[in-house]
Amino acid sequence: MATRRKVVALSGGIGGAKLALGLARVLAPGDLTIIANVGDDFEHLGLHVSPDIDTLVYTLAGLANPELGWGRTGETWTFMATLEQLGGPAWFRLGDGDLAMHVMRTHRRAQGVPLSTVTADICAALGVVPRVLPATDDSVRTRVRLDEGWLDFQDWFVGRRAAPPVRELAFDGAATARPLPAVLDALADPELHAVVVCPSNPLISIEPILCVPGLREAVRACTAPVVAVSPLIGGRAVKGPTAAMLNDLGAGATVGAVVERYRDLLDGFVLDEADAEAAPALAVPTIATKTLMLTLADRIRLAEDVLAFADRIGATPG
Amino acid sequence: MATRRKVVALSGGIGGAKLALGLARVLAPGDLTIIANVGDDFEHLGLHVSPDIDTLVYTLAGLANPELGWGRTGETWTFMATLEQLGGPAWFRLGDGDLAMHVMRTHRRAQGVPLSTVTADICAALGVVPRVLPATDDSVRTRVRLDEGWLDFQDWFVGRRAAPPVRELAFDGAATARPLPAVLDALADPELHAVVVCPSNPLISIEPILCVPGLREAVRACTAPVVAVSPLIGGRAVKGPTAAMLNDLGAGATVGAVVERYRDLLDGFVLDEADAEAAPALAVPTIATKTLMLTLADRIRLAEDVLAFADRIGATPG
Repeated sequence: MATRRKVVALSGGIGGAKLALGLARVLAPGDLTIIANVGDDFEHLGLHVSPDIDTLVYTLAGLANPELGWGRTGETWTFMATLEQLGGPAWFRLGDGDLAMHVMRTHRRAQGVPLSTVTADICAALGVVPRVLPATDDSVRTRVRLDEGWLDFQDWFVGRRAAPPVRELAFDGAATARPLPAVLDALADPELHAVVVCPSNPLISIEPILCVPGLREAVRACTAPVVAVSPLIGGRAVKGPTAAMLNDLGAGATVGAVVERYRDLLDGFVLDEADAEAAPALAVPTIATKTLMLTLADRIRLAEDVLAFADRIGATPG
Repeated sequence: MATRRKVVALSGGIGGAKLALGLARVLAPGDLTIIANVGDDFEHLGLHVSPDIDTLVYTLAGLANPELGWGRTGETWTFMATLEQLGGPAWFRLGDGDLAMHVMRTHRRAQGVPLSTVTADICAALGVVPRVLPATDDSVRTRVRLDEGWLDFQDWFVGRRAAPPVRELAFDGAATARPLPAVLDALADPELHAVVVCPSNPLISIEPILCVPGLREAVRACTAPVVAVSPLIGGRAVKGPTAAMLNDLGAGATVGAVVERYRDLLDGFVLDEADAEAAPALAVPTIATKTLMLTLADRIRLAEDVLAFADRIGATPG
């Protein structure tokens, strides 16, 4: 029987979703709230695509595609084949089942239903128990400046395979976005046990969450310990452009650079055993453990390690 | 080598598309223009669906689904399965490949591209040689009045399986719709050889074309013979609600009632051999032939019969 511990996790897509699934398995039903990045959201073919929310939902629903590492299991691709035949854009792959999410979301949002409600309804339909909350119902759109100029995030990330170096980041709409009230409530809950910053890209997965006005302050002000899990293993990212972006943006692909991003928030930092020697130089309590999550058991074990670490920090008067 | 004869066909969906395919095989490339009904068009899940245009396109492209009698061949249904899982509406079946048409059309129309241009581009992409022209780029929406009140066409046709009797028809938007200029040009072409009214439902497939202001007049004024093909065989429709609607709306399911619908337009009427005895009572020249089109050979033969009949009428000073 799991202990009741309310936890808020901040998460981007794939890596974050793996730890979120581990946390969901460890915590009692109803105790996990996940704040999801919407900076990767975009309009494609007139459809509202929410890549990180969908990855979280598919992962938590047991529907994630194990071969691709993204999208749905049992996916078919007739839509894409036909779209290409019609001369439509092929650079962003939309599976036939995945498309149902985007069509439903687009249709309901056009009717005035907020993204958070659509997400909650999708979770309910798919039996996803943890709350998945977009950081905001407003539009926040990550943009990247390359040497050649500004690009929308997905045009760089998928369209250009995240290859060209990023010189600057912007989060369009962030300045006027309103944090989801349920997000602020979850962070202000006096019974909150821990805030976990998942091993997501700090620059493009966690930052678009924290840059929503009031959100960084709410994390900082919460009474529970805030623990981040390093997205780096030996200075490299398991997947995605985290290391390259940290290098290209001048911070360096080190755990120190990751801690620096969260400096005002953190009560603890979980790094990989491969980076254990960097721990003494970090200005925050750390534990070193295996952070690579290949199996469900890995995810559960890391979640347990993170929560046990948060327990210890929480028991120590700050 | 086919003779060059410019022909305009007025068509709804399935039955009309079969004869349109026959005409396409008989006529030289570039000689066939099809004016398509848009009264069945509707918005579903925020997507613009054009059932009759799509049936025409699929039929002419050799992509029609032979088992279903509608939709695309080689279709998959992952989108629908997922949509149902998400609690979305299941009453209107959207195949995964079919969806590519609707998404492309919706997206491009939202960008301001007219339906006629989208249709032309889809035809070009799929190698459809005949011109498929929506009667109008404006919105015309067929509505049906049942005993219980007014319904949108598809809610009755698909949602209610066309079962409840129709007491009245309306074509929302028709009064202010503008005929497609290319449609008027095709009908005014002095080289036009024939106008063929396909064996479609006169009430809900052909009428929404003719009720676009100026269109009925343009058919009436054209110099070529206008020949309609009966949608009835022995007082019954091959498929769909034509006979029931003719009965329910008081006209009776007879070739006489069909001719009456087109009275001011017709120069000739093609009826099925099963209805040959009704011919003498019709106030228009007729031929009787086999109008059931089970095979491609049937479609080609009927097209040849219709064109030969139009040739004879055209050779006779009216």
